[in-house]
Amino acid sequence: MSDFRESDPTHLAEAVRAGDRRALARAITLIESTRADHRATAEALLAALLPFTGNSVRLGISGVPGVGKSTFIEAFGLHVIGLGHKVAVLAVDPSSQRTGGSILGDKTRMVDLSREANAFIRPSPAGATLGGVARRTREAMLICEAAGFDVIVVETVGVGQSETAVADMVDLFMLLLLPAGGDELQGIKKGIVELADLVVVNKADGDLAATARHTVADYRHALTLLRHGDWRVPVLSCSAVHKNGVDAIWDTIGEHKAITQANGQRATRRADQARAWLWSEIRETLIDRFRAHPAVRADLARLEADVTAGAMIPTTAARALLGSFLGESAVP
Amino acid sequence: MSDFRESDPTHLAEAVRAGDRRALARAITLIESTRADHRATAEALLAALLPFTGNSVRLGISGVPGVGKSTFIEAFGLHVIGLGHKVAVLAVDPSSQRTGGSILGDKTRMVDLSREANAFIRPSPAGATLGGVARRTREAMLICEAAGFDVIVVETVGVGQSETAVADMVDLFMLLLLPAGGDELQGIKKGIVELADLVVVNKADGDLAATARHTVADYRHALTLLRHGDWRVPVLSCSAVHKNGVDAIWDTIGEHKAITQANGQRATRRADQARAWLWSEIRETLIDRFRAHPAVRADLARLEADVTAGAMIPTTAARALLGSFLGESAVP
Repeated sequence: MSDFRESDPTHLAEAVRAGDRRALARAITLIESTRADHRATAEALLAALLPFTGNSVRLGISGVPGVGKSTFIEAFGLHVIGLGHKVAVLAVDPSSQRTGGSILGDKTRMVDLSREANAFIRPSPAGATLGGVARRTREAMLICEAAGFDVIVVETVGVGQSETAVADMVDLFMLLLLPAGGDELQGIKKGIVELADLVVVNKADGDLAATARHTVADYRHALTLLRHGDWRVPVLSCSAVHKNGVDAIWDTIGEHKAITQANGQRATRRADQARAWLWSEIRETLIDRFRAHPAVRADLARLEADVTAGAMIPTTAARALLGSFLGESAVP
Repeated sequence: MSDFRESDPTHLAEAVRAGDRRALARAITLIESTRADHRATAEALLAALLPFTGNSVRLGISGVPGVGKSTFIEAFGLHVIGLGHKVAVLAVDPSSQRTGGSILGDKTRMVDLSREANAFIRPSPAGATLGGVARRTREAMLICEAAGFDVIVVETVGVGQSETAVADMVDLFMLLLLPAGGDELQGIKKGIVELADLVVVNKADGDLAATARHTVADYRHALTLLRHGDWRVPVLSCSAVHKNGVDAIWDTIGEHKAITQANGQRATRRADQARAWLWSEIRETLIDRFRAHPAVRADLARLEADVTAGAMIPTTAARALLGSFLGESAVP
């Protein structure tokens, strides 16, 4: 039975580090809360855990609906656990709701993986913007690392909104493809392929085996010039349902880790990600505080209407609103 | 000889509306200034002119260096002036400097057009970020409209930075292409073609005439599905140097105007642009004021270093800095 005081961040941090799964779940619920007192406790918790973070392989996995992400993550997770690792699976899905998220909400997903003691699966936080989901997922990743999970998988829905946010928080971004034609035919949005550090054609089995080989060859050709630093983006295939090819994917992830640790790119990427997170935190909080300010709330609708009607210069409306928010003297 | 009091925005506005070219140039210099007192006068000037704006066709023109933008704009401008219009040409080039801008800084450009009484050519404001250049160009556009210019051409350097900013301030965004292969071969960045309301293959003359025909056919095929509302993006060709095809381009711009005015898309687009301008103004001013705040300046470098070193959660650093900026009580 768990024994920790939820309102005491030091105590909760100790329970998380000791491997208490209820404490881990509670800690993530805490960082997902928007209540001001929860937020303060969450920050203290994160500060206490921070020295014990960073020791994982952070993987982003994306792919269009139907590509077999759940099946892949289950096969991949079980393989990696079999090698002695601990795997946490987090989701980034801004569209999910507490009642029936579009990914990971379904409890029948990843049944075998979820039964493993060394696996932890967490659905996307609900009712938040992409920015909010991204922040909470970054924080949940840190908590899972402090709890001893050394492989973190961040899954996206793959409909073109959240991929950039996920690529910006992981060491390696993996794109799952179907055995089929080009990006457009697969419904992949522009620019997503360029985010990938690793491309994997799934469902390379049965009737689709030959098509999968062609798809691998096509993407290898198309991605000849795609490099991220010293890393040339590989194109692999697998059959998640038959658990074929998963070992080679894990080996490639290991190569990527070795190369990017040796040349410093992993450290640079993480530092850049932390800086970008800081600035997005600052920008989002500034605009949230601005929108919530009583004087802004009183005038915004009217001034926005004037601006869209062409009756007021946006600069003038902005200055009036910023004057209310910052105090007249603060605005040039 | 001009006769207006520069520091009196009402008087300057009257001179601009009366067609005084020195007043027009002075008004644009005023809105380009970052001095606080100039900014206040500029806003009063814009407020006085606002009722007389909006009555132009706002065109954005982009294309990679070498596509013949200057030659095209000169041929186009002369054609349109011949039909009785007044044409203003503005540039958006965040890389330009007061001493030797990369576009429009060269005084030998558009020699014939610059001699026309009904043409006004203005280089990009110098020493500003893209956001700053975009704001000043939007404001310059309004001033030109109040001065009676009914065709405004906003030119970009076409190297992938400023196209979105320009597409977001015009009624019709035109992309000039070379008679050559696909986007990549022409050095066109991803996503730029999708911004276009009109695609024009220039240099359709001499040895390149056949290649131009193929390029038109290729792009027509590739853009079959590209629509903006009811508008299906046309692909035309021209020879700016021989002044061929310019009349058809102007006619197409007229069709676009008629269709988008009739279905309300022009009004919606302008309202959306004004709203987006308001919010970008708010966001940029907030972050500028934040960076300039003494307490933020004192602590930012240290906290940013802690964050990138993984020694502090970005959320915590953001809260500390925002506390200094907004006052502790204002931050959750």
